[in-house]
Amino acid sequence: MLIVQKYGGTSVADPERIKNIAKRIIKYREEDNDVVVVVSAMAGETDRLLNLAHSINKFPDEREVDVLISTGEQVVSALLAITLKTMFCDAVSLLGHQAKIVTDSSFTKARISHIDKNQIMSELNKGRVVVVPGFQGVDEKGNITTLGRGGSDTSAVALAAALDADLCEIYTDVDGVYTADPNICDRARRLDKISYEEMLEMASLGAKVLQIRSVEFAARYNVPILVKSSFTDGEGTLVCKEVLDMERMEVTGVTYNKNEVKITVAGVPDKPGIAAQLFSALSDANIVIDVIVQNISHDNLTDITFTVAKADGKKAFKIMEETALAIGASGVAIDENIAKVSIVGLGMRSHAGVASKMFSALAKEGINIEAITTSEIKISCVIESKYGELAVRTLHKVFGLDAEYVAEEK
Amino acid sequence: MLIVQKYGGTSVADPERIKNIAKRIIKYREEDNDVVVVVSAMAGETDRLLNLAHSINKFPDEREVDVLISTGEQVVSALLAITLKTMFCDAVSLLGHQAKIVTDSSFTKARISHIDKNQIMSELNKGRVVVVPGFQGVDEKGNITTLGRGGSDTSAVALAAALDADLCEIYTDVDGVYTADPNICDRARRLDKISYEEMLEMASLGAKVLQIRSVEFAARYNVPILVKSSFTDGEGTLVCKEVLDMERMEVTGVTYNKNEVKITVAGVPDKPGIAAQLFSALSDANIVIDVIVQNISHDNLTDITFTVAKADGKKAFKIMEETALAIGASGVAIDENIAKVSIVGLGMRSHAGVASKMFSALAKEGINIEAITTSEIKISCVIESKYGELAVRTLHKVFGLDAEYVAEEK
Repeated sequence: MLIVQKYGGTSVADPERIKNIAKRIIKYREEDNDVVVVVSAMAGETDRLLNLAHSINKFPDEREVDVLISTGEQVVSALLAITLKTMFCDAVSLLGHQAKIVTDSSFTKARISHIDKNQIMSELNKGRVVVVPGFQGVDEKGNITTLGRGGSDTSAVALAAALDADLCEIYTDVDGVYTADPNICDRARRLDKISYEEMLEMASLGAKVLQIRSVEFAARYNVPILVKSSFTDGEGTLVCKEVLDMERMEVTGVTYNKNEVKITVAGVPDKPGIAAQLFSALSDANIVIDVIVQNISHDNLTDITFTVAKADGKKAFKIMEETALAIGASGVAIDENIAKVSIVGLGMRSHAGVASKMFSALAKEGINIEAITTSEIKISCVIESKYGELAVRTLHKVFGLDAEYVAEEK
Repeated sequence: MLIVQKYGGTSVADPERIKNIAKRIIKYREEDNDVVVVVSAMAGETDRLLNLAHSINKFPDEREVDVLISTGEQVVSALLAITLKTMFCDAVSLLGHQAKIVTDSSFTKARISHIDKNQIMSELNKGRVVVVPGFQGVDEKGNITTLGRGGSDTSAVALAAALDADLCEIYTDVDGVYTADPNICDRARRLDKISYEEMLEMASLGAKVLQIRSVEFAARYNVPILVKSSFTDGEGTLVCKEVLDMERMEVTGVTYNKNEVKITVAGVPDKPGIAAQLFSALSDANIVIDVIVQNISHDNLTDITFTVAKADGKKAFKIMEETALAIGASGVAIDENIAKVSIVGLGMRSHAGVASKMFSALAKEGINIEAITTSEIKISCVIESKYGELAVRTLHKVFGLDAEYVAEEK
């Protein structure tokens, strides 16, 4: 088999951990697999480098930022190759420009356009493990580029696609994808499998296991991803195409996000173009809006409610106050004490009554729903933040996701 | 003018110092010079990275060591380019593989074979400052290479030669080349000029201002080097071809080295091949020999004395004990309390009696000479280490190098 493995920043945080990874890689080699390894920078290193740049300029030149921060992964690539060779496993590091991971020229957030697989294949054919720094590429002119935060996941999936690998393993500090955050819900279970679509919704909703872009990439090229822990020996979670033997519950997971605020613009005149006016003012300020709810209007006046990231809250509120004045709305309110609880699952498409089951469960606990949005495989409710954890545990139980016994602490 | 400037590790040790460098570069740009800047890694960074590698393996794979340690200069290149752009001076970093600094494939000690100047010239023609990481290159196959310790000086001189620059400025933590180490001899004077030949002898004898290889390179391509301090605004020292207006003293400088030990093999049978047998045993162990003295023989027995670096002393002594036994010598002695004092100067060639003047001056102070070696423009004496500083001050005075008054402390 040809396997691409990706190790995150905590998995390569020091030479001792790098040695543990090397041992794992050698086991795969002994079982006659070809292995390409994608590594992140040591935990904290990218931030350290960015802080250096930001101490000079709040908005440092982005081409040079990429030259700077790409060194983090380069260091780990060299250290891993040194470790493998020390353990008598032939290995070679290939940087972005050597492995020919070609991207566009959008520095700090480049997208991979193609990978010339010949260089890597030629090294694999010599019996070598190829170590590639994640997160980095090279544009057509030979400039170093980086793929944006979490880009190493995307590097790994893109390499797996380009090399037509049998599997892309992502090693991280959790042992798979869970039905809910185990820190909140002690009955959360590790999923054996999850579909790309569900994983995408879960990732968008705050499950931080995989970078969204890497899941999109995997879905497009049908690359199976196995999410595993680099510290323990579990089975992990396979992220793949929807298959028939997949656990078919109504709901696959419950997610939860406390990092948003809710803004309500009241008494908005209900005429064409008003919503556009409101939201273009926000997008001009580079503020991303999440949930949007507009109620039916009374007396040609309507209320528009939306959520934005907590960090953008004050700025968005200020912009809305000005805009409200301009469009003749009656007022603006901000609520910082909210949480967004969501259920995700392909099963929703074939099970009726999932939404009402969610709403009644919350009502039964006395939790008021302040806003609702849905997609084909997701329902999100905005609630008071103090009920967040309770809501997660309630929904987890109601939809039959609870493990039969509480897993022992490792 | 086209000027290549090189800044050492202490000059780029933090963002504040990098800002000071940027100010200086901008002054040169305002005077309408084209500037190529070669930077070292931040002081201590190369050692930090090497320690990481050595914590894995005492002899880490050298190709990967170069991938690892080349990041130090890469980081500084990016930070300097960011700083220049922040100060409204257009700039771009070009790494070894981008600037096309092509070397052989001797990882960790590569030699530059050629530089394709087109990339750099094209950026200069756009009015940009080009920042190049020192110490690194790329071999014909695209592997990253490094040039060995102090290699950034060589990078700068090689770039100056390839670009046909008018001047190569080396900024360091001293303000030029001195007639003696000012820490030992408070009457030491900064030299305005020194020839390549003298600089080479001074460098070999322990003056650490410039890397030997860079001076060889400069001499071969006739690149004038100006050594200056990056912290003060002095004139510096120009290292160049011997010219007629050069100060023509008998002696240009006095150097001093306390990091050697003296080993004497006594009662060596005086027959062909014996010396070869002695010294090949040392070179097999990668021990570099400095001074070698063999006295005329008595009764077909001779004494052979040589010096090696202190670090190699014990090992060399052990090898000599074995070899002495094998060749039938009578004994081996090691003396760690020695110093090597040297005088250097093109003037020696035309002034008679320089050697006898040196020997009498030392004798007058009661300093015994244990060994002597000479080259066309250098005389070195091995003496008891406790007399080292006294010898330097004595010779400095006798050869008329003393400054007329002691420079005030800055």
